[in-house]
Amino acid sequence: MTRTAAPGLKSSASLPPKALKAKARDAANDDDAGDKPPLIDQALVVFTPSGKRGRFPVGTPLLKAAQSLGVDIDSVCGGRGLCGRCQVVVGTGEFAKHGITSRTNHVSDWNKIEERYKSKRGMQDDRRLSCQAVLVKDVVIDVPEASQVHKQVVRKRAEVRDIELDPAIRLHYVVVQEPDMHNPSGDLERLLAALEDQWGLTALEADLRILQNLQQSLRAGNWRITVAVHRGQVITAIWPGFHDRSYGLAVDIGSTTVAAHLCDLASGEVIASSGLMNPQIRFGEDLMSRVSYVMMNPGGDREMTDAVRRAINELADAVCEESGIDREEILNATFVGNPVMHHLLIGIDPTELGGAPFALAANSGITLWASQLDLRFHPNARVYVLPCIAGHVGADTAGVILSETPHLTEKMTLVVDVGTNAEIILGNRDRLLACSSPTGPAFEGAQISCGQRAAPGAIERVRIDPETLEPRFKVIGSELWSDEEGFVEETRKTGITGICGSGIIEVLAEMFLAGILAQDGTIDGTAASRSPRIQPDGRTFSYLVHDGTPEIRIVQNDVRAIQLGKAALYAGIRLLMDRLGVEQIEQIMLAGAFGSHIDTKYAMVLGMIPDCPLENVYSAGNAAGTGARIALLNQNARDDIEEVIRQVEKIETAVEPNFQAHFVEAMGLPHSSASFPNLSKAVTLPAASNPSAANDSAAGKGRRRRRPA
Amino acid sequence: MTRTAAPGLKSSASLPPKALKAKARDAANDDDAGDKPPLIDQALVVFTPSGKRGRFPVGTPLLKAAQSLGVDIDSVCGGRGLCGRCQVVVGTGEFAKHGITSRTNHVSDWNKIEERYKSKRGMQDDRRLSCQAVLVKDVVIDVPEASQVHKQVVRKRAEVRDIELDPAIRLHYVVVQEPDMHNPSGDLERLLAALEDQWGLTALEADLRILQNLQQSLRAGNWRITVAVHRGQVITAIWPGFHDRSYGLAVDIGSTTVAAHLCDLASGEVIASSGLMNPQIRFGEDLMSRVSYVMMNPGGDREMTDAVRRAINELADAVCEESGIDREEILNATFVGNPVMHHLLIGIDPTELGGAPFALAANSGITLWASQLDLRFHPNARVYVLPCIAGHVGADTAGVILSETPHLTEKMTLVVDVGTNAEIILGNRDRLLACSSPTGPAFEGAQISCGQRAAPGAIERVRIDPETLEPRFKVIGSELWSDEEGFVEETRKTGITGICGSGIIEVLAEMFLAGILAQDGTIDGTAASRSPRIQPDGRTFSYLVHDGTPEIRIVQNDVRAIQLGKAALYAGIRLLMDRLGVEQIEQIMLAGAFGSHIDTKYAMVLGMIPDCPLENVYSAGNAAGTGARIALLNQNARDDIEEVIRQVEKIETAVEPNFQAHFVEAMGLPHSSASFPNLSKAVTLPAASNPSAANDSAAGKGRRRRRPA
Repeated sequence: MTRTAAPGLKSSASLPPKALKAKARDAANDDDAGDKPPLIDQALVVFTPSGKRGRFPVGTPLLKAAQSLGVDIDSVCGGRGLCGRCQVVVGTGEFAKHGITSRTNHVSDWNKIEERYKSKRGMQDDRRLSCQAVLVKDVVIDVPEASQVHKQVVRKRAEVRDIELDPAIRLHYVVVQEPDMHNPSGDLERLLAALEDQWGLTALEADLRILQNLQQSLRAGNWRITVAVHRGQVITAIWPGFHDRSYGLAVDIGSTTVAAHLCDLASGEVIASSGLMNPQIRFGEDLMSRVSYVMMNPGGDREMTDAVRRAINELADAVCEESGIDREEILNATFVGNPVMHHLLIGIDPTELGGAPFALAANSGITLWASQLDLRFHPNARVYVLPCIAGHVGADTAGVILSETPHLTEKMTLVVDVGTNAEIILGNRDRLLACSSPTGPAFEGAQISCGQRAAPGAIERVRIDPETLEPRFKVIGSELWSDEEGFVEETRKTGITGICGSGIIEVLAEMFLAGILAQDGTIDGTAASRSPRIQPDGRTFSYLVHDGTPEIRIVQNDVRAIQLGKAALYAGIRLLMDRLGVEQIEQIMLAGAFGSHIDTKYAMVLGMIPDCPLENVYSAGNAAGTGARIALLNQNARDDIEEVIRQVEKIETAVEPNFQAHFVEAMGLPHSSASFPNLSKAVTLPAASNPSAANDSAAGKGRRRRRPA
Repeated sequence: MTRTAAPGLKSSASLPPKALKAKARDAANDDDAGDKPPLIDQALVVFTPSGKRGRFPVGTPLLKAAQSLGVDIDSVCGGRGLCGRCQVVVGTGEFAKHGITSRTNHVSDWNKIEERYKSKRGMQDDRRLSCQAVLVKDVVIDVPEASQVHKQVVRKRAEVRDIELDPAIRLHYVVVQEPDMHNPSGDLERLLAALEDQWGLTALEADLRILQNLQQSLRAGNWRITVAVHRGQVITAIWPGFHDRSYGLAVDIGSTTVAAHLCDLASGEVIASSGLMNPQIRFGEDLMSRVSYVMMNPGGDREMTDAVRRAINELADAVCEESGIDREEILNATFVGNPVMHHLLIGIDPTELGGAPFALAANSGITLWASQLDLRFHPNARVYVLPCIAGHVGADTAGVILSETPHLTEKMTLVVDVGTNAEIILGNRDRLLACSSPTGPAFEGAQISCGQRAAPGAIERVRIDPETLEPRFKVIGSELWSDEEGFVEETRKTGITGICGSGIIEVLAEMFLAGILAQDGTIDGTAASRSPRIQPDGRTFSYLVHDGTPEIRIVQNDVRAIQLGKAALYAGIRLLMDRLGVEQIEQIMLAGAFGSHIDTKYAMVLGMIPDCPLENVYSAGNAAGTGARIALLNQNARDDIEEVIRQVEKIETAVEPNFQAHFVEAMGLPHSSASFPNLSKAVTLPAASNPSAANDSAAGKGRRRRRPA
């Protein structure tokens, strides 16, 4: 057998060649083989589901055959029967398609290594260790998904790609040559030689702490050792003997909350998730007030950096405790966050992000030791911070792109992450644009007279009868509508305390659809004759949603706050559409916590987003966090997103001359000039509010005039 | 003019093209140019001493011409007239060889930038800034050595190569594009673009602390900044505006003393040197006792690691204070030391070095942050630790090789570094062997009854009258011989306290030459009849060197101790000679403090080293420390030595079957069988001690029999 560069094959043949020949003869003489008892020297093996096939000498370990055919099959121990990652199922029966009659005895019997593995670690009865079972006769071998290196993980909606498991940290078990006075090479150099020889890993480096602990580990493991290699380049952890646990943490640092997901780097599974309030809130509720805090308080950046790092350590503690994992087993972590969160995490004063030209310190992805960020994971754990895109478009948006992959689709795709600022991405595989638009905090319930955070007691759903103008609603904490029996009892505990972000969108949209709001956003005083709920409020009117304690009503200023926010959002989107020269968007992803709760139809009724077939408007959930998880589980995703980020065209709304005009036109409901043909199919828009085709065409011309030729 | 990739040329032309043309015309009309007044568009420039020449458009800055011809000329500021590194001298007169009449006005007049530089920083009258002076007419330009990038530094004996200055740290002044809302790239990315554009540096990375301080530095420097780049790969320091100071520290960690040299990385000069006792001495006088300390005391390695790192910090403080330099200006450091010192510096438990198979943790060079070794230099300072060769042959020997370059010569070269262990290197450019031999501490004055360290009062030179057997000697602290007038007065203060290492070599060699010592090392009792200084001492005899307080005498055990040491040394050398198949060594370098003080003739009389023409036996001084300095000042030397180390054949004397036989034969004075024809020309060896040609030939045969065929 020629030696191959495939990993870990040197010691995998556990039967001596003579025994194998005898075994092959026995198999050839069994009832399948029937009348002809030829000496079989080669056998055909077909691996499913890949269908890869080849002939190999009898006695070839199945793992070796698989690897030489390029079949995707996992191994940490390099074929030594320790890790159990390479399990396969031997097919039984006639496989007409492959022309093979496959039997379990077409591979060798269990050897001691395999028996020891099964008795010690357990294994399904139909499974074999492919590194121990050797080829005897033609056979079909199935590689279950769990045995594949590149398992599909981070399963998402059908329209978005799955993510292959390919973490930045890989474990490798090696047997290292003992030192010898005749060949006085260093222990490190012999380890590196073993890794090259047994795993094909070249040009590896090692962290200083590895070097400091290497000699003891090698001797404790009797020259058997498991190493963790980061991105195929650096040894970051060692364990005496065989070790196969490795974990990673994906962290999404929001202005309000910090969320962390602990992932098993071998399976890609999320083992535990946790979140907590961003402790920086005590320095300022929103981003700009935190930047102001730094400007006013020398060292304030350091305080906030320390605070968020402490929070991340607490989160790591929480998820580790929940999973029974030691914090030192976290070998890798990824981070997303807006530019201010990004800079504060890394320890960069965010002052420059507080004023024009909003210069980022860096817009590339950053790989560091966790210890450089005071994070108490494995002492050599590496962290990767996703790249920021622009001064207002952060690593969170990079995560959203990684999750929603607008750059991979042919469809003209809009991705919106709504918060105090909205990050907007528009484009497709040909071209991608990004900008940020200052929507203000109204969508989160701030600046709304009865607004509140999404919490029990907050109104989150509203319907208004267009005839009677009577509302019904649901509050967080109860599944009942306000006009259903038992609602009063169910909500007694929480009370009915205010309206959260999604509730505000709904109540305004319903008010508009019911004719209470005019196209220009005025609460129509003439409707007061139709319902006592429309009440004078100084020189304007208000709409009483709930006559309790507190009284919950929508006042004119609430409408104005939402109009300002939604006009800013729409104007930003429109700018990107102009730049791309598109009039129709094919799909829309609404990211972020807000996107998860909003009824996309109502968002469109208010004109937050342009017209689009409603069935193609999706909630993307916490797409930024998903992006962090993808970057954790697939190292190439890091390179991919950095490349995408470099290509993304960044638009700064503040210096775009058309922004103001778009903003003004977007103040109307749903819009002063744009048409919403797809929305009109789903809801009946008040007549005056849907500009005629002629109107639309004129507006189109106007836009064409404004665009550079 | 086409744009070139040469560094810093974009803003170097300080006169607008029209003015240059006019200037060129004036020059063409001057008395040199004589009768014909043509419009000169191109001019010839010859650079000396390189002789490189070329024609360039009139108006070309001299620096740009030099760079495009590949003339070695320095610049930190990239041609902006700030650094003054690119100074040249304009030749005047007829240069028949070059066919040029050169005049000072064949380059442009001083511009404001050049005048400002001269008034602010001073400049010799004949010097010009080549980045500011532009070509006007044919001219000869001399580049003084100080203006060359690759100055020759670390000048040594003529037979060894000079070292070119090419430090791992280079400074680069750049002008960075300001941020712009239309192009929201990060400050770091714009800095990297400027470094690529202005200096041709690609794929640079930056330390985290650089990123953390970058925005403030760029703004403080008004988008002008100086960066330090380590090995063309990583930005390790930044300064607002122009900065041109950078320093490095070369450190030699001996078991007994730690020595440091502070070097100016721009000039290559040693600015200050200092040394102190290795504080590890309190854990054990010699290496093995320190390793024992670790074995007996858990955590003892950490104590010794801390101790040596503290000592290095103290040394850095001392040399910085002496030179008026801030410790944070040290950007790079290099270290040599034996394997135990090497491991303890890096923080590796040296236990494995205390017993067979003497496994090194690593045998490659190691680059780290100084902070990883608790060294308080610049926060991002890098250190380079030279590679160890084998368990007993350390980074100090790597430094010796770098300094003495046996691998570059055709001559069969022996390099010996004598201490408690002797490191031995033998070979030439074709093949190099290394081993270590356990000489014991006798050569350092230990284990000698009247031995002491080299300090005032110690006898360091001895002569014995072969007729009277009367000695005369010199002691450290006085230039007088003991038989000269005033000796008693001069030495009254120090006393005459003992014999140091070099004194012991001399007194034994002189005793042998005078017939007091027999070839087998016995103090000859029959000589007692010739001199009262030969006195019975139990069953042996002693020789009284000085009848004072204390009484200083050589006893038989002293001779035995030296014999054991020198036999071990010679046997090691002989092993390597056997392996190489050589009988004659062409040159010998004696490295180390001991090598600096020893009289090489006496060392050969005692047979410490094999026969060799005495004029080819050199003291190499502190060659290990010189090697550290070379690695500091020339980055490629680091790669060179690592490559050499990989090629060196390592011989472990402990497992060589011939070592014992060689050792026994080497006990005689100078040797029991080998001849010393070259030595015999310089001194008259006692008849019996110089084996006859017949003897020698037999010995030669014997050796041939022992060598593998």
